[in-house]
Amino acid sequence: MSVHSEQPRIGIIGTGAIGGFYGLMLARAGFDVHFLLRSEFDAVVSNGLQVSSAVHGDLHLKPVKAYSSAADMPACDWLLVGTKSTGNAALGPIIRQAAAPGAKVLLLQNGLAVEDELRAVLPDSLHIVGGLCFICVHRVAPGKVMHQAFGAVSVGYHSGPAADDAERLAIIDACAQLFRASEVEAHVMENLQQARWRKLVWNVPYNGLAALLQTGTRALMADPDSRELIKALMDEVVQGAEACGHDLPAGFAEQLFSVTESMPDYKPSMYHDLAEHRPLELEAIYARPLAAALAAGFDMVRVRTLYQALGFIDRSSR
Amino acid sequence: MSVHSEQPRIGIIGTGAIGGFYGLMLARAGFDVHFLLRSEFDAVVSNGLQVSSAVHGDLHLKPVKAYSSAADMPACDWLLVGTKSTGNAALGPIIRQAAAPGAKVLLLQNGLAVEDELRAVLPDSLHIVGGLCFICVHRVAPGKVMHQAFGAVSVGYHSGPAADDAERLAIIDACAQLFRASEVEAHVMENLQQARWRKLVWNVPYNGLAALLQTGTRALMADPDSRELIKALMDEVVQGAEACGHDLPAGFAEQLFSVTESMPDYKPSMYHDLAEHRPLELEAIYARPLAAALAAGFDMVRVRTLYQALGFIDRSSR
Repeated sequence: MSVHSEQPRIGIIGTGAIGGFYGLMLARAGFDVHFLLRSEFDAVVSNGLQVSSAVHGDLHLKPVKAYSSAADMPACDWLLVGTKSTGNAALGPIIRQAAAPGAKVLLLQNGLAVEDELRAVLPDSLHIVGGLCFICVHRVAPGKVMHQAFGAVSVGYHSGPAADDAERLAIIDACAQLFRASEVEAHVMENLQQARWRKLVWNVPYNGLAALLQTGTRALMADPDSRELIKALMDEVVQGAEACGHDLPAGFAEQLFSVTESMPDYKPSMYHDLAEHRPLELEAIYARPLAAALAAGFDMVRVRTLYQALGFIDRSSR
Repeated sequence: MSVHSEQPRIGIIGTGAIGGFYGLMLARAGFDVHFLLRSEFDAVVSNGLQVSSAVHGDLHLKPVKAYSSAADMPACDWLLVGTKSTGNAALGPIIRQAAAPGAKVLLLQNGLAVEDELRAVLPDSLHIVGGLCFICVHRVAPGKVMHQAFGAVSVGYHSGPAADDAERLAIIDACAQLFRASEVEAHVMENLQQARWRKLVWNVPYNGLAALLQTGTRALMADPDSRELIKALMDEVVQGAEACGHDLPAGFAEQLFSVTESMPDYKPSMYHDLAEHRPLELEAIYARPLAAALAAGFDMVRVRTLYQALGFIDRSSR
């Protein structure tokens, strides 16, 4: 057992909107949090990390234990990865440098099979925990994050040296406790794959349409055509999940639709990725779910249409 | 019989890219052509009509028999309508003012049921002929048209006072002869509805994707995702046509795809309509074919997905 009873050391790999928000919340609660930064290093060293939160108010962490190289980080018991899924294959050396023996790596990303990609580049001695963030958050400037709504995290054990279900449960329970001790709602997931499909029911329509149509949730929910398209895409993802053996609760898509209607206007990450000429997370959010459903006998044709349009703009935007 | 043996008088309703090109070709061949213009009236009176053609060279018509009101036009035996299909319901008074008794109205537009809309606002004494233009042409400035490739027109009798098939055929033959006498390839169509579906196999993918993805045919044909999407959309339209009783020749979609690959880069009219904040022709090119196929039992789901995305940008662009 490597679950710590003493204070664990936490590393944040990728201090963007997700890593910045959760890392700050953990540090604010008294945890020992170390942040790996790239382009934002200088700004964060000078000005600290700032979160302007509609839920928690204006938060400021300064000084920040900031690093420009994983080689300089102390060995961390937990590593929260908030980078884009498009870079997962390159995370191996970075995570190995920052990880204590038997460390737990929590991958806070959307899409399918993101953990599998990471597993392929990490030693067997490290645990991988999958995490889903239900949050409206985006980076507005170096070291500055805007938190508009929600914030819950769901975590599920993916793979690693855990001996049995009891140890797996202990690890994800410990992970959820870290968040709960930091004013972050956290849930333990028994079925990580099903949870990833559930999250896709939101991400597939809203991330893609926000990027393709260059808009936010408010406008998408106000137009009769995009409303119908969102519903149709959600239904397809629900059917794709079912084809893959993950029956979702009745009314699940309708509930997500209704929650989104009551949200403030939100531009999902893919909107910002396109605007800033970053690669879009099309593989994890579209290509893999499409392939999984097709292999199970169901072609999500509307999702594929959206994916192909996004593939074009992804390539032409860079 | 109202088919003229003497020289017919021709009116052009809507002197944009289509009306300007064909009107100039007819006038250049010696026909008596009268042009109705709106915003471009002053420019055309001052500078004439110019067509820069990759096929025919630089053409210039000056002076132009130009009118800013249909009430000022002489009674025309033929009226060529090259306006946007979004305005068809308002064409009644204009056409009635410019039409000689028993005039033939040739509607040069894409999409389904555009003639039906016009029929509803015209007296029974006028013939309506449907026309399809196979041409790469666009307006570059007031009175200036760029003609990149092709130029053929197909015409089919829609409705009106023709007594029998012989008279209907005589009318569309006479129409084709006008074009052929003007260096324009022309074909007579026995089945106007099938021809409109054939044209949709091109317009549905290329018009919509060019507008949605803000690009031309060259880029669409170069990207692997948009290529696959174009093929899938074409296949759906072919199936939609079949559902509606219009079997298209085997290999028809593949042939259109291949022709487009050999074309110069072309931005279809919907691209320009969006760029210039004009209403998109979504009703004729998308909504009516979708409804017709659905009524026949086939839901063109990819076409519907594209249509819904276009509906959003159409409303948000104005």
